[in-house]
Amino acid sequence: MTSTDRWQLPDGIEEVLPGQAARVEQLRRDLLDLFCSWGYELVIPPLVEFTESLLVGLGADLDLLTFKMTDQLSGRSLGVRADITPQVARIDAHSLGSDAVTRLCYAGSTLHTRPKTPMASRSPIQLGAELYGDGSLAADAEVIGLMLATLGAAGVCKADKTLTLDLGHVGVYEAVLKAAELDDATEEQVFDALQRKSKPDLEEILERVSPDSAEMILALLELHGDDTVLARAREAFADVAPAAVTAIGALEQIAAIIRNQHNDIGIYFDLAELRGYHYHTGIVFAAYVDGHGQALANGGRYDNVGEVFGRARPATGFATDLKAVVRLLTQDEQAQPGAISAPAVDDAELIRAVAALRAQGEVVINMLGSEADPRCDRRLVAENTQWVVKPIND
Amino acid sequence: MTSTDRWQLPDGIEEVLPGQAARVEQLRRDLLDLFCSWGYELVIPPLVEFTESLLVGLGADLDLLTFKMTDQLSGRSLGVRADITPQVARIDAHSLGSDAVTRLCYAGSTLHTRPKTPMASRSPIQLGAELYGDGSLAADAEVIGLMLATLGAAGVCKADKTLTLDLGHVGVYEAVLKAAELDDATEEQVFDALQRKSKPDLEEILERVSPDSAEMILALLELHGDDTVLARAREAFADVAPAAVTAIGALEQIAAIIRNQHNDIGIYFDLAELRGYHYHTGIVFAAYVDGHGQALANGGRYDNVGEVFGRARPATGFATDLKAVVRLLTQDEQAQPGAISAPAVDDAELIRAVAALRAQGEVVINMLGSEADPRCDRRLVAENTQWVVKPIND
Repeated sequence: MTSTDRWQLPDGIEEVLPGQAARVEQLRRDLLDLFCSWGYELVIPPLVEFTESLLVGLGADLDLLTFKMTDQLSGRSLGVRADITPQVARIDAHSLGSDAVTRLCYAGSTLHTRPKTPMASRSPIQLGAELYGDGSLAADAEVIGLMLATLGAAGVCKADKTLTLDLGHVGVYEAVLKAAELDDATEEQVFDALQRKSKPDLEEILERVSPDSAEMILALLELHGDDTVLARAREAFADVAPAAVTAIGALEQIAAIIRNQHNDIGIYFDLAELRGYHYHTGIVFAAYVDGHGQALANGGRYDNVGEVFGRARPATGFATDLKAVVRLLTQDEQAQPGAISAPAVDDAELIRAVAALRAQGEVVINMLGSEADPRCDRRLVAENTQWVVKPIND
Repeated sequence: MTSTDRWQLPDGIEEVLPGQAARVEQLRRDLLDLFCSWGYELVIPPLVEFTESLLVGLGADLDLLTFKMTDQLSGRSLGVRADITPQVARIDAHSLGSDAVTRLCYAGSTLHTRPKTPMASRSPIQLGAELYGDGSLAADAEVIGLMLATLGAAGVCKADKTLTLDLGHVGVYEAVLKAAELDDATEEQVFDALQRKSKPDLEEILERVSPDSAEMILALLELHGDDTVLARAREAFADVAPAAVTAIGALEQIAAIIRNQHNDIGIYFDLAELRGYHYHTGIVFAAYVDGHGQALANGGRYDNVGEVFGRARPATGFATDLKAVVRLLTQDEQAQPGAISAPAVDDAELIRAVAALRAQGEVVINMLGSEADPRCDRRLVAENTQWVVKPIND
């Protein structure tokens, strides 16, 4: 490895340099402040936990995404978090232990063994909000509303770009699968093929099952689009998988609430959308913006995660990747206010003047040698007994 | 593992719950803003890098602190950063590549395989600032000044607590070791024993070396205290290790600059203090507060780190642990402004009223069921055709 190789970063692991980092930080603050104004309290879960705590009950896909290493102190396996939501569920279930409705939010780096999609980062800065203790559709609607407010505050839906809300419900899939009476292995394969929206794979897997079951499951793949999807789904499943009808009704209600609050949002139903991870149990959702193939934010209900920590709690929430959102923003090159240079003079009055300017929000940069920082457009100069700010060329 | 065990966190790995997390976040913002006002630009280095990039040239102690795992994409070893400073040095040397003075700052989680001191966290939130491209004492003084301003802004030095600045210089140790002409293995042991300030261990190691060399090295252990230390050091080393005299002069100059700017700071010289990691090359420093055994912040000059990335640059900087600083602060239980509850009514006017209040900085919490959040001291009620804020018991 030569010295020129040493700066290489692993694929999908990126650093954020000055300018862009300031934008990430500003967005982080704006969004955490937004969450706070909705009553969501910040928590800071740790970077690593015992693998058993991090992954229990959460399925193979999250397991595969998680880097593991051995804890030298305990000899046990540690995982670097690939997702913060299960950590926050643990905090709600155990660390807080309240029976009341609890609203929590967080922002932090996560790490993936491989990119979730071909171009995705392996180290997103995950920012999200979670609502515990309320199983109602009103709770789902609140979290979806907060997700839309988040993307609005971030400025992703400017003039020509509209936001689309993708809505699904795991209950539809569950009712259909239950009616189809598949064995566990086939069910796992069906889940996987549906996630990838792969019709050929699905057809191949379904050659083994009864034609009626196969038809129901294949129907899921076609059930995406506008409101007519719900009517078609009702027709398709009312007799063969009646439990699906409750879930379809929930989707109808959620769509009505969201439309009432956000008349500028397009809603797209997708009954084969399961949002991965196997931990969702009800409404699932994602937000897309025109011309960007990846979901900008997504989430859903996951009522069972707390149970493995000893306390089942209704739960719903969403998350986004700060770095991905910032990359999407068109950068308004605001004229940055310039900095002030301070000469390298040891003078008590100068020290006071510099401190006062900094406290007022000015950037004051010490001149160490003779050269001023190129960011400086003004400088401190001694005039009579006072230090005053002058234009740099004065 | 029963469900009650699953919430256990590994030793030294902590979560931060509501309230305390808000304080950590506020301090993070205040300090990054302070760094910005001094002209330090934010960068966000990644959580992991190739172990070769992360550790090259940095010595065995940092290596031992670093968790490693295999990158499935490249088959190479990844390290989770145990220290952010070498990452920022890489960014300066390679990613930015400027020849001008460059000021950078950062805040992020790090991870240690074992606690650096018995009670230390293994997952500090490291926050720091680094100055590249200037090898002068003025640059060291700027960074020390920023460290003191940081702890001042954090509020750690209230009324009864005073801050002490610990100053050392690796050049003194280097001059003495060079004069002593030890073999590499012995030198390593001496470094280790000095780090631990263990006189018995040092005496045992030095039985193997000449009495003159042993005397010089043992003298280092006693050279700590007030300004008389520098005079004693000059006397002890002027003839046997004359290179040490330059370093002693540098300490004198730095102390004078700092005293001129901060007349309330006690200065303590410690010529055996090397601040670990083997990467420091000049002035090293730390800040202590009365009644707290651990350094609250520390740093020093490290001119050689950039070299391994292809570009040697003078460098000096400091870092602190946000969580440790917040733990130290006496919590002024400020009366938090209460929240406002909004009824679960689907009304366009209510939606507008809630949005307006949130935009004004109020916390407005939706009532999902009948119970309001205990944080609410006011509520939104419909009066005639308007939504108005009333006390909760009105």
